[in-house]
Amino acid sequence: MPPTYTPGPMTIVCKMNTDSLQQRFLKIRSNKAFELFVVFVIIFSALVIGAKTYDIPPQLLFLVGWLDWFITAVFLIEIIVRYLGEERKADFFKQGWNIFDTLIVTVSLIPAENTEMALIGRLIRIFRVLRMVSIIPELRLLLNSLIKALPQLGYVMLLMFIIFYIYAAIGATFFAAINEVLWGDISRALLTLFRVMTFEDWTDVMYETMTIYPLSWIFYVTFIFFTAFAFLNMVIGIIVGVLEEEHAKERAKQDKLDGKITMEDLAVQIQELKTMMAAQESYQKQNR
Amino acid sequence: MPPTYTPGPMTIVCKMNTDSLQQRFLKIRSNKAFELFVVFVIIFSALVIGAKTYDIPPQLLFLVGWLDWFITAVFLIEIIVRYLGEERKADFFKQGWNIFDTLIVTVSLIPAENTEMALIGRLIRIFRVLRMVSIIPELRLLLNSLIKALPQLGYVMLLMFIIFYIYAAIGATFFAAINEVLWGDISRALLTLFRVMTFEDWTDVMYETMTIYPLSWIFYVTFIFFTAFAFLNMVIGIIVGVLEEEHAKERAKQDKLDGKITMEDLAVQIQELKTMMAAQESYQKQNR
Amino acid sequence: MPPTYTPGPMTIVCKMNTDSLQQRFLKIRSNKAFELFVVFVIIFSALVIGAKTYDIPPQLLFLVGWLDWFITAVFLIEIIVRYLGEERKADFFKQGWNIFDTLIVTVSLIPAENTEMALIGRLIRIFRVLRMVSIIPELRLLLNSLIKALPQLGYVMLLMFIIFYIYAAIGATFFAAINEVLWGDISRALLTLFRVMTFEDWTDVMYETMTIYPLSWIFYVTFIFFTAFAFLNMVIGIIVGVLEEEHAKERAKQDKLDGKITMEDLAVQIQELKTMMAAQESYQKQNR
Amino acid sequence: MPPTYTPGPMTIVCKMNTDSLQQRFLKIRSNKAFELFVVFVIIFSALVIGAKTYDIPPQLLFLVGWLDWFITAVFLIEIIVRYLGEERKADFFKQGWNIFDTLIVTVSLIPAENTEMALIGRLIRIFRVLRMVSIIPELRLLLNSLIKALPQLGYVMLLMFIIFYIYAAIGATFFAAINEVLWGDISRALLTLFRVMTFEDWTDVMYETMTIYPLSWIFYVTFIFFTAFAFLNMVIGIIVGVLEEEHAKERAKQDKLDGKITMEDLAVQIQELKTMMAAQESYQKQNR
Repeated sequence: MPPTYTPGPMTIVCKMNTDSLQQRFLKIRSNKAFELFVVFVIIFSALVIGAKTYDIPPQLLFLVGWLDWFITAVFLIEIIVRYLGEERKADFFKQGWNIFDTLIVTVSLIPAENTEMALIGRLIRIFRVLRMVSIIPELRLLLNSLIKALPQLGYVMLLMFIIFYIYAAIGATFFAAINEVLWGDISRALLTLFRVMTFEDWTDVMYETMTIYPLSWIFYVTFIFFTAFAFLNMVIGIIVGVLEEEHAKERAKQDKLDGKITMEDLAVQIQELKTMMAAQESYQKQNR
Repeated sequence: MPPTYTPGPMTIVCKMNTDSLQQRFLKIRSNKAFELFVVFVIIFSALVIGAKTYDIPPQLLFLVGWLDWFITAVFLIEIIVRYLGEERKADFFKQGWNIFDTLIVTVSLIPAENTEMALIGRLIRIFRVLRMVSIIPELRLLLNSLIKALPQLGYVMLLMFIIFYIYAAIGATFFAAINEVLWGDISRALLTLFRVMTFEDWTDVMYETMTIYPLSWIFYVTFIFFTAFAFLNMVIGIIVGVLEEEHAKERAKQDKLDGKITMEDLAVQIQELKTMMAAQESYQKQNR
Repeated sequence: MPPTYTPGPMTIVCKMNTDSLQQRFLKIRSNKAFELFVVFVIIFSALVIGAKTYDIPPQLLFLVGWLDWFITAVFLIEIIVRYLGEERKADFFKQGWNIFDTLIVTVSLIPAENTEMALIGRLIRIFRVLRMVSIIPELRLLLNSLIKALPQLGYVMLLMFIIFYIYAAIGATFFAAINEVLWGDISRALLTLFRVMTFEDWTDVMYETMTIYPLSWIFYVTFIFFTAFAFLNMVIGIIVGVLEEEHAKERAKQDKLDGKITMEDLAVQIQELKTMMAAQESYQKQNR
Repeated sequence: MPPTYTPGPMTIVCKMNTDSLQQRFLKIRSNKAFELFVVFVIIFSALVIGAKTYDIPPQLLFLVGWLDWFITAVFLIEIIVRYLGEERKADFFKQGWNIFDTLIVTVSLIPAENTEMALIGRLIRIFRVLRMVSIIPELRLLLNSLIKALPQLGYVMLLMFIIFYIYAAIGATFFAAINEVLWGDISRALLTLFRVMTFEDWTDVMYETMTIYPLSWIFYVTFIFFTAFAFLNMVIGIIVGVLEEEHAKERAKQDKLDGKITMEDLAVQIQELKTMMAAQESYQKQNR
């Protein structure tokens, strides 16, 4: 915000000072080596997480604990540098990825000793691998485009859920007595239908119900047809959407490229020609 | 239909009366709050259906029964409102979704006490969830587009059925003695082949027949090839169809956008220029 | 072939006679009712084939035998009618579908009593269902387009076969001692790999070999990657091919539609304008 | 490199000699019959490899050994011919396929008697089938295009690996106590998740963990969703990429076709018209 009062000499010095500090942090943040170092620490933290899943001797476990704190410290410093490097402090928390990073780092700081918290602490440490996405711009772009595609598919997913729900209700009503585990209630039936959709041993499920209801194959075959069609529709929806976007981008690019001479420009030029000719004509008539 | 006779004052009053009533009902029907309320009741009915699949104490069962009647009543009132809100009563039953809604609501009204009818009653209550599709325009559009795509795929499906039928006939002829359950008759063979197409434990089926006919793997591998190709063809058929439609839409939009100045318009303008020039020339010659 | 000699009156009469006969048969052949009747008989023959896979009482078996002969007779008559209806008899056997039909009908005529021939007779009767494809033009078109797409994919399939062969050779070399049935020789290994490609219980195969070679998961995972990529390539090949064709068709249509006024026409017109102007100019100069 | 000194008569003779030799080898190399012979030997070597996986009597084994040496000899001669046929010897090893061929042939020459080396020798002999790709240009093209598509998909694969890694870390942390074989450490968990992604008996894996963590179905269902979406993204990435390339090619072709008369040319012509008209006008004014 622009200063509305005439600043005293002291204020100016202070402002310059913080400004140059912010500039310096921004320089650190934009430094390629700094970025690479952070990426390296994230990969290292992933390896530490992976190593912890193996049986490791207690001496090494001690080392792993120290490495954990080192990684947390690096992440904390990085977040602070990024925050101080931000020109407008308030904008920092407007970006989803910054909030995500801060949250992950803050929670890592809480000491987790009792078993309950320890599990959550381990989960948080695992999710630190996701910081890879927040730090590599190409991955951030990819994930954003995935998220952007989701609402576009919202209605297809709603339709699919309705199909699932109706079939699950029918299944839970008729087949619950046959197999309590698979069809006991509607949530179990929904999971069983998800399994059928992935074709995972779906015939075992079918043959079981066919012993009581010999025509229940209709239930499964129609369900597979409906979900396959709905899924196809979804896939095509994405493809067409993406292609459309690409076409639009390309057209815009093309328009910019040959932007100077369009049909309209030609028409304007011909119009000018006509005006000139009419002027010439009237001039000739006048002079005669 | 326009009145062909001069109406007496009474008729006019009556007509105005029903007209205003219809207008009022139309207003209710188009009311956003009313629509939201109906959507809410449908979701609620879905939840009631889901709840019924769990083991619930008898006291709650009583409540569920009352909720069921409440939902039926709301649906009945909604249908009546929609019918009365229709300008031309006869057109109401020309729309498939209206017929579907009326049918579902009417059948729900029939008291179902004996076991036979109770099952059908439960099924009807489940299908009430489908009313979600009839009330949300986006879902209606989606389903319509799915149904519209079906006949386009009719011949691919017929071809696929012929492939299935021939393989099922061969399978039922040769393998019936090996496994009565899988290949006993042509309908069982068709179901087994559908299973093979979804890759569901198809090698178990194959290894069984290979004990008698060691070359029967040719049967399965060629079948998978043929159906996979036919399926691919179907998918591509849909994609190309959808893309074509999209392109056609876009082209129409584009044409409308830059509709004023086309090649033809330029040609007309140049033609005019020529005429002007010719006129000028002849004028000059004349005057000389 | 045009007659090179002056025909006597007898020849002319004969020719006219056979001509009118051919015309009459052509008329029968092109008759919609005749076509529908043949389609009906094919469907009927399919139903008879299906019925034979059920356990039927001996009295009905007798009836089925009669129906079989009736169907064969109808097909024979139809082929003869089609042959006689052909303008140039030699061209009849140039069409693949005619050869197929004649073959199927001819083999059906051979009486099959002994067990060996009976099986082949049954197979031939099953393949009569394929006559559906030869009689419905839309299906014929569909199958032709499928066959046409095959050579285009030839090299992808060759590449895929090479991948399969190398992996099968490796598998048969290293895993034969572990499971003789799955990896005993190269043909068994190829079948096992086809199974792995369809994801059918592939982990069972993998865990078995991992007991001896703990790193053999690399074998399976890379194989799945390679075949999935090759398959993707194939699918995309088809899609791009089909889309290209569609685009080409459309462009040709478009070109025909707005064929009259193109860029070139405009250029010609402007050129004419220039010529006119130059003429006018020189005329003016001359006259001055 | 061009000779920088005036060559004596001897040098010229030598140069001509080697030149003509190189030309002669180039002629052999480009000979269609030679190429076909090499392809035939490769197919033959593939058949020999396949034959070795069957149980063959010792006498034949002796023959197979001789065939092996014959194939190696042919390949060696072919490589030498290709090398001598190369105009610039240094360029020969700049092509990846030449290096691959030379390596395969060289390693085949090493006598492998002891068991350790024998296995590697057999592997090398199997990979000789890959020479099919190096000798048929269409296959080389296909493989190159596959390899070219890989980096384009690099980021999607990295994202997918991150998803895999996070889920594997969670799985190895929580489920290791339930099933040591499937979730014992992070590499096992990664393999198990790959299995889940291919839908291979994934419900068996799920039901096992659901006995301890009833909500662990969320783990599997979300994982399937994420990987399916990422995979979709990858497929679409390839399709869009390929289509784009095709479009670009076509546009370039189209531009070349109607390259002479574009919008720009028309504009230039109209401009000329204007200039002419202006000249005429000023001339008229002058003369008046």
